[in-house]
Amino acid sequence: MNDKLNPNERIDDLQRNGLKIIQNTQAFRFGMDAVLLADFMRLRPHEHVADMGTGTGILPLLLSQKNETCIFEAFEIQPEMAQMAQRSVCLNGLEERIHVHAADMRTAWKIVGRERMHAVVCNPPYGKRGGTLTSGTESVSLARHEADCTIEDVAASCAAVLRNHGRLCIVFPAQRMLELCDALRQNRLEPKRIRMVCAHADKPPYLVMVEAMKNARPQLLWMPPLVVYHSDGSETDEIRRIYHQA
Amino acid sequence: MNDKLNPNERIDDLQRNGLKIIQNTQAFRFGMDAVLLADFMRLRPHEHVADMGTGTGILPLLLSQKNETCIFEAFEIQPEMAQMAQRSVCLNGLEERIHVHAADMRTAWKIVGRERMHAVVCNPPYGKRGGTLTSGTESVSLARHEADCTIEDVAASCAAVLRNHGRLCIVFPAQRMLELCDALRQNRLEPKRIRMVCAHADKPPYLVMVEAMKNARPQLLWMPPLVVYHSDGSETDEIRRIYHQA
Repeated sequence: MNDKLNPNERIDDLQRNGLKIIQNTQAFRFGMDAVLLADFMRLRPHEHVADMGTGTGILPLLLSQKNETCIFEAFEIQPEMAQMAQRSVCLNGLEERIHVHAADMRTAWKIVGRERMHAVVCNPPYGKRGGTLTSGTESVSLARHEADCTIEDVAASCAAVLRNHGRLCIVFPAQRMLELCDALRQNRLEPKRIRMVCAHADKPPYLVMVEAMKNARPQLLWMPPLVVYHSDGSETDEIRRIYHQA
Repeated sequence: MNDKLNPNERIDDLQRNGLKIIQNTQAFRFGMDAVLLADFMRLRPHEHVADMGTGTGILPLLLSQKNETCIFEAFEIQPEMAQMAQRSVCLNGLEERIHVHAADMRTAWKIVGRERMHAVVCNPPYGKRGGTLTSGTESVSLARHEADCTIEDVAASCAAVLRNHGRLCIVFPAQRMLELCDALRQNRLEPKRIRMVCAHADKPPYLVMVEAMKNARPQLLWMPPLVVYHSDGSETDEIRRIYHQA
């Protein structure tokens, strides 16, 4: 198996159906936000789903286990990252269900066609262009910041590939929730279901997960806040369920 | 004291600094949302504050105890309700600090002038015009529904009287949060601080409280969710603090 690994890469066990993922210790690695977003997303049988900015490929890998009849198109702008995600797909024998494209999400519609996807998932860069956070490497910087792709670009890219009444599930920092919702609505993606994530029950939410529907009417369904840790630092029952589900 | 009461009226003790309030058992009475909003609002010394749609007068009564140097202009469209609020103000000897105006909030700027208020508080009607909820009396209906005043009217009325960088504190149903924020931003009232209210920790938020600042830049500060009840049905410590503060 190690002949599939490049320098600085390692194989991590996702502890779910034997899934494994290759990660580079010097590059952007997936975080809890991706795992929570996969849990938040609902899939129906035989849906065709795009992942915009797949990184390590974590989202289609996790989602492939949620509904075994869905097919995924994963877009990643960084060629080395896309190549690594492709190797993770092969490692799990999922080549027929997860198609990795080394391509900018803004050109995804040229590859899968306009308005063809039933659903889109996206864990976009969080930082603002010109923000104060800086990252050590260009790879991490591209994945974390809007250096190359603003939230308006993200929303437009998702809308371009989504069918009428198709759903987008996206995660974003809570403090930028209104910017996110503005960008979605400007692309006829109406927020329909929303869940805030709090590290502790008595702390402010730091993430927001939004399900938006294309060309839908405004009506927002709130879910209970998702709390990550008990006050003693241990994981809540819901986080345990999300991380260790069959 | 009972010579101040009309038929169906009673005097309730607000259990705070000896404050009392007159309520009509057949008309709109104040709810927990007003008490939570008074707690959410921050006042600075000597501020001049408007309450748009004061109803029983609950908000200026509670807020008058939060900072004893602030002056309040309370607007109420229903003459009988405004007259009752005025009697509550007199009952507490607060005539010099709380001025009740029997006037539509949309004309408040004609009474207090344009852009003169440091802050505005508002517990507006929640129901949509033409919504399915109906109320028994016209008085309750006016207070609960947008029959006469939409959220866009509310936002415009508040913006008209607020100074540059003045603050609006407002409460609204969580499911209509995006409509509220749109209406605020269209009137240059930028949401800056936000708090969701949940009946129980594992239930979705049902109310949102927003502090918006006139002509401010977008940046949202989230507060921890406010939970009303423990799972055994008893009030949480925070609700006890809010209801029984000195």
